[in-house]
Amino acid sequence: MSDTRFDVIGIGNAIVDVLSHADDAFIERHAMTKGTMALIDADTADRLYADMGSAIECSGGSAANTIAGLASMGGQGAFIGKVKDDQLGGVFRHDMDAIGVHFPTAPAAQGPATARCLISVTPDAERTMNTFLGACVELGPAEVDAQAIQAAKVTYLEGYLWDKDEAKEAFIAASQAAHEAGREVSLSLSDPFCVDRHRESFLELVEHHVDILFANEDEILSLYKVETFDEALQNVRGHCKIAALTRSAKGSVVLSGDEVHVVDAENVDKVIDTTGAGDAYAAGFLFGYTNGHAQDLAHCARLGSIAAAEIISHFGARPETPLNELVADIFG
Amino acid sequence: MSDTRFDVIGIGNAIVDVLSHADDAFIERHAMTKGTMALIDADTADRLYADMGSAIECSGGSAANTIAGLASMGGQGAFIGKVKDDQLGGVFRHDMDAIGVHFPTAPAAQGPATARCLISVTPDAERTMNTFLGACVELGPAEVDAQAIQAAKVTYLEGYLWDKDEAKEAFIAASQAAHEAGREVSLSLSDPFCVDRHRESFLELVEHHVDILFANEDEILSLYKVETFDEALQNVRGHCKIAALTRSAKGSVVLSGDEVHVVDAENVDKVIDTTGAGDAYAAGFLFGYTNGHAQDLAHCARLGSIAAAEIISHFGARPETPLNELVADIFG
Repeated sequence: MSDTRFDVIGIGNAIVDVLSHADDAFIERHAMTKGTMALIDADTADRLYADMGSAIECSGGSAANTIAGLASMGGQGAFIGKVKDDQLGGVFRHDMDAIGVHFPTAPAAQGPATARCLISVTPDAERTMNTFLGACVELGPAEVDAQAIQAAKVTYLEGYLWDKDEAKEAFIAASQAAHEAGREVSLSLSDPFCVDRHRESFLELVEHHVDILFANEDEILSLYKVETFDEALQNVRGHCKIAALTRSAKGSVVLSGDEVHVVDAENVDKVIDTTGAGDAYAAGFLFGYTNGHAQDLAHCARLGSIAAAEIISHFGARPETPLNELVADIFG
Repeated sequence: MSDTRFDVIGIGNAIVDVLSHADDAFIERHAMTKGTMALIDADTADRLYADMGSAIECSGGSAANTIAGLASMGGQGAFIGKVKDDQLGGVFRHDMDAIGVHFPTAPAAQGPATARCLISVTPDAERTMNTFLGACVELGPAEVDAQAIQAAKVTYLEGYLWDKDEAKEAFIAASQAAHEAGREVSLSLSDPFCVDRHRESFLELVEHHVDILFANEDEILSLYKVETFDEALQNVRGHCKIAALTRSAKGSVVLSGDEVHVVDAENVDKVIDTTGAGDAYAAGFLFGYTNGHAQDLAHCARLGSIAAAEIISHFGARPETPLNELVADIFG
């Protein structure tokens, strides 16, 4: 892996999160499915926002959160994603610049506003998301900076991109550019409904394009249309080079050829908000993987668990405590 | 106090906070005075923002925070302040609407952007603020909704308004409208440097216009140019009807004629961010004062302490836990 300026380059939706506390009645009233993500149009976003409580805004986006986590670990990250040239687009860009992430994608001068994800956090710390994709729909193959892709050890893609044809083309173009340069490609399945919408293509992707797959339990069950985690595990084994399957409080299971690791979750005093837990796990895992521990997948998984534990212990999907401080003692 | 739809109406700068962690070197590098607020222009705001870490955005503004705290206690609040018709202005308005606060001020269609307060929170949980007033400079006497003022038991003004002539006129107009209707006027001194900039006018204000004064230790020392808290206390006594002086971990002292109360601070497990502590104290105090406890100032002070303790236990200046839940047991 020579000539690599970046450990990981993420490609995903560039989104500002709007986080608010909500009760279960709110989730029911708006016919939401708790713990999942739904796509909404601009009018629905306005209507829903008007019914939400007082909120905080912070940069989000699944792959973007992972790259932010990687940077917080001390890794070199880059990100491709589309914002508009508006105030919230400026917030997103600032937060990438501030953590030293290379973000070459020019903002859109016209068209829909910067994407927003309206996140309702219920008292059980579960988050339910409604995303207005806004300027993200402008992301296409033209935005795929092949030079940056080929300068990254791993190209990390979020499954959410599959929801738009243009972004899907960007996804494939990025994957091809990475493999041409002998780099690896990683995919996060993002959401069980997202998997359900695109099962056949995802199965083909995993088989032909993906080296490192991240999925949580619901997502991997959905991918293989099976009922138990063990069935999913048997299916995914050998389907791609490495699969890292997260199971919330049960920790994670990592598969690679004959290798299997079952790694515990880190203890958390109080779970406040699970938004971004999976993104953070991928950040820790990929940091370890691209920084000398590719042969020690259990160590990568443990770094993922530590990052996820930090994220769920506060409101919001990006680290409050620098992750490199949390892993300083185990990363000698 | 009949015909009062509102417990308190606040008049202040309508600001979106941009909160970031910073180290002491950052504070020194930018020649900031820790714990205080400085006014900055648009260029400085851009330059400073570019050097700040990853941030979160949330509605702020001193008087606006107090009204948000009052609403969280279960009180009826209103707010007068100027945003622009832009994305951050929309965020500020949403957060007022979402908590049921009456906010009649129309947004500016032209001119500078919605105000931002760049807040650097150091590891000691102290906050240092740099404010770009933006659209707030459009606030003038024309925005003072006399009907709303006269429908409020207390009109609450932040000292920061004194920094702009137009806003100062709005301040005086509001105070006169309130007194004409037999209502009371409350002032928060906001910041020791703000007091230093306007000492003579503040002294006259306190003597002739203010019924309830809020100040922290630095501010009240600055107002009377004295060295010790006890000297300040002797000066303020009798200078206005009620003075509520906050002293961080030492609690607060409330003076009214011959009456003196020394009330302890509430215990906090870990102080995370002191932004908005004084605003929250005023919220709790005024909620008690306007809801049947005007004759029990020690009780008002205790409500203030409880509200302040909630605010300093997390990042950000508005309540995360509904304050009415925290005081349910003592507010029978």
